[in-house]
Amino acid sequence: MSPNSDSPIIVQKFGGSSVADAEKIKNVARIIVNTYDKGYRTVAVISAMGDSTDDLVALAGNLCRNPGGREYDALLATGEMVSVAAVALAINEMGYKAVSMNGQQAGIHTEDLHNRARILEIKTENLINHLNDGYIVLVTGFQGINSKGDFTTLGRGGSDTSAVALTGALNAERCDIYTDVRGVYSTDPRVVPQAIKIDQISYIEMMELARVGAQVLHPRAVELARQGNIKLCKRSTFDLEDPGTMMIGEVTADRNNAVTGIACDNSQARFAVEGCPDRPGIAAEIFGSLANENISVDMIIQSLGRKEGTNDIAFTVGSTDAYDAMRVLEAVKDKIGAESITSDVEISKVSIVGAGMIDRPGIAADMFEALAEEGINIKMISTSEIKISCLVEKDQGHDAVRGIHKKFFPHAHATEDVLVNEKVGY
Amino acid sequence: MSPNSDSPIIVQKFGGSSVADAEKIKNVARIIVNTYDKGYRTVAVISAMGDSTDDLVALAGNLCRNPGGREYDALLATGEMVSVAAVALAINEMGYKAVSMNGQQAGIHTEDLHNRARILEIKTENLINHLNDGYIVLVTGFQGINSKGDFTTLGRGGSDTSAVALTGALNAERCDIYTDVRGVYSTDPRVVPQAIKIDQISYIEMMELARVGAQVLHPRAVELARQGNIKLCKRSTFDLEDPGTMMIGEVTADRNNAVTGIACDNSQARFAVEGCPDRPGIAAEIFGSLANENISVDMIIQSLGRKEGTNDIAFTVGSTDAYDAMRVLEAVKDKIGAESITSDVEISKVSIVGAGMIDRPGIAADMFEALAEEGINIKMISTSEIKISCLVEKDQGHDAVRGIHKKFFPHAHATEDVLVNEKVGY
Repeated sequence: MSPNSDSPIIVQKFGGSSVADAEKIKNVARIIVNTYDKGYRTVAVISAMGDSTDDLVALAGNLCRNPGGREYDALLATGEMVSVAAVALAINEMGYKAVSMNGQQAGIHTEDLHNRARILEIKTENLINHLNDGYIVLVTGFQGINSKGDFTTLGRGGSDTSAVALTGALNAERCDIYTDVRGVYSTDPRVVPQAIKIDQISYIEMMELARVGAQVLHPRAVELARQGNIKLCKRSTFDLEDPGTMMIGEVTADRNNAVTGIACDNSQARFAVEGCPDRPGIAAEIFGSLANENISVDMIIQSLGRKEGTNDIAFTVGSTDAYDAMRVLEAVKDKIGAESITSDVEISKVSIVGAGMIDRPGIAADMFEALAEEGINIKMISTSEIKISCLVEKDQGHDAVRGIHKKFFPHAHATEDVLVNEKVGY
Repeated sequence: MSPNSDSPIIVQKFGGSSVADAEKIKNVARIIVNTYDKGYRTVAVISAMGDSTDDLVALAGNLCRNPGGREYDALLATGEMVSVAAVALAINEMGYKAVSMNGQQAGIHTEDLHNRARILEIKTENLINHLNDGYIVLVTGFQGINSKGDFTTLGRGGSDTSAVALTGALNAERCDIYTDVRGVYSTDPRVVPQAIKIDQISYIEMMELARVGAQVLHPRAVELARQGNIKLCKRSTFDLEDPGTMMIGEVTADRNNAVTGIACDNSQARFAVEGCPDRPGIAAEIFGSLANENISVDMIIQSLGRKEGTNDIAFTVGSTDAYDAMRVLEAVKDKIGAESITSDVEISKVSIVGAGMIDRPGIAADMFEALAEEGINIKMISTSEIKISCLVEKDQGHDAVRGIHKKFFPHAHATEDVLVNEKVGY
């Protein structure tokens, strides 16, 4: 059944590992054609093949010290252009009509900012015309054009964002994010083989999971889906029968678990400004200085200092920002009259996320108990409405995740000779 | 001295081997900046890096049986986009302003035909504006856009053609084609180390040399230069002092040699239709049928057949067309009542080209004598005003070139312990 101009639209997104070679590209072509044959007007957003973006980044790194700006985007944008043309060739070979579109041809208009532009508007006329003419449309992820017609790129997770934004602009029925795993899991199956696939997850849980280090979907894409109330699905390229994980506004109340997912983030650094004078404006000075350098801060804790009338202020930053943070803090220390700065990069942030924990007391206690049972010391705790994070020693991070998973998903660990999931690559 | 909007324009073209890696890209950037610093508004046309186009061709070959059309062009066009952005990054790193432009941004409008489109018009406004704003402009070779805004490619030698067409459209002072040899040689220096660099060559000699197999410049680019009377120069990326070879309308009369260049083409196949009835329309039938299949024919010879009242018609085609040619000829044979078809792919076409041979008798005799001295049998001869070609056995092609070179350039062979040119890669 071929779609017509009244048929619903589906947007599909395929990541770089799904199009890494000719055989994988043909598989992606089959998935897309299969959707078209079910009567959907079909749009697929494709990332750059395999490691090709890394190769372009490396080339730029050999040509200049700080790659950026218009030309860096012009370079990086070519990776996705290769993919969409390649998938189009494969679909045409199957006897279907496919057309590839780059950011300009697909009408994806962004801010004038380079390297991490946001999408402002998608002018869908060209795209819709091709869909209505019976074409399968393949759109480059990660890129758009600015007001001058120059290519821009969207930064990390850009292709997910492109797919969700197109889903909204085309008023499509659904956005399917295809990956080489079955969906979103209760935790990383490479760390805990007993991890359970989640059937439904709310946008807000998904965003929190992404923020605490689960490599699931980019928070910006999830936020865009939440704002547009877009049906977003993460599913597998190797099992089309599996419905994957669906992101929705509110998860139905009959879900058993207070905790939806457990994540571990090893790319954090902990700083403490010790012996800060106890007067107004100190925290504002510290975090204002960090914000001025574009350093994002997480897990802020203030506690009484050893010396009377002083406070210790501790927090975490991404480890790539650690060097800059230390430079900023050394300057701030003298300005505010603090005693010392300490830092620790040998840390792991272990978090549990779940909308269900709002109404249920004792979840935090269960998490701390699980860590105690594994003999793991907690260095810092931070909580939000639907999230609890603990800092632990870096080499205990995975043990922490396993212990916590066993505590909150005991049925998955009922027998210890459980089969390891056949395919993870989470 | 920085150029201004009254400064002359120079167009430079760099082939794939000149930008094969980051170090070579930096060298190209230095050559371009050097020209800019001399006060020229500078445009550089860049080919795809190294073997990257071959990689894209191979990818397409793994995705479909007969790659072609819009998507194949969209795929191939990415190679040059990588190069121009990379060179722009390298130039920006040197503190100069560079901007890369793809076929669309540079306003290169072509026929709607894919894979071998011809340039119809170049809308230079965007390019000129950037030149006048002090930018060095880097333009993708080999590509343009059609009336729908889809990328097209120009076929073999496309980047040379892009550069010459831009030179004309911009009314530039000169077009410099940079390669890894010093210019055009009297013959392939890999075959004859004593080959001499040619300082000046006429367009018409250059076109003939290209057509008989010298891998110098694409005939289409030379023809375009001839039509526009464009100063075209082939020169070296590794010795900027060397002025290279200049192509001009007429070479001054004081050139000594009747013969300008000697070429050898091993990619030809010879066919003969034997025993054709001697009546009008036979040749038209044979060559019309081949033309209908887009097969180009060279070196046509008609001679008397063995049986009275018959002719033998022999000719050569490119070896990639040999299979199709045989299929066409088998059908034609029965239609015209010819006796048999013979073919030979083990041949080499050796040619001499020179505007000076027009007025000088005995050049052909000298060539045949040179072949006789090497003990080489001639299978077929064809002549034009400024060219003589002989078919010989394939494994004697290089010996033939050496013998002929010694005959026409005896001074280059004056001593046999001559130094081999330090760098050839012709």
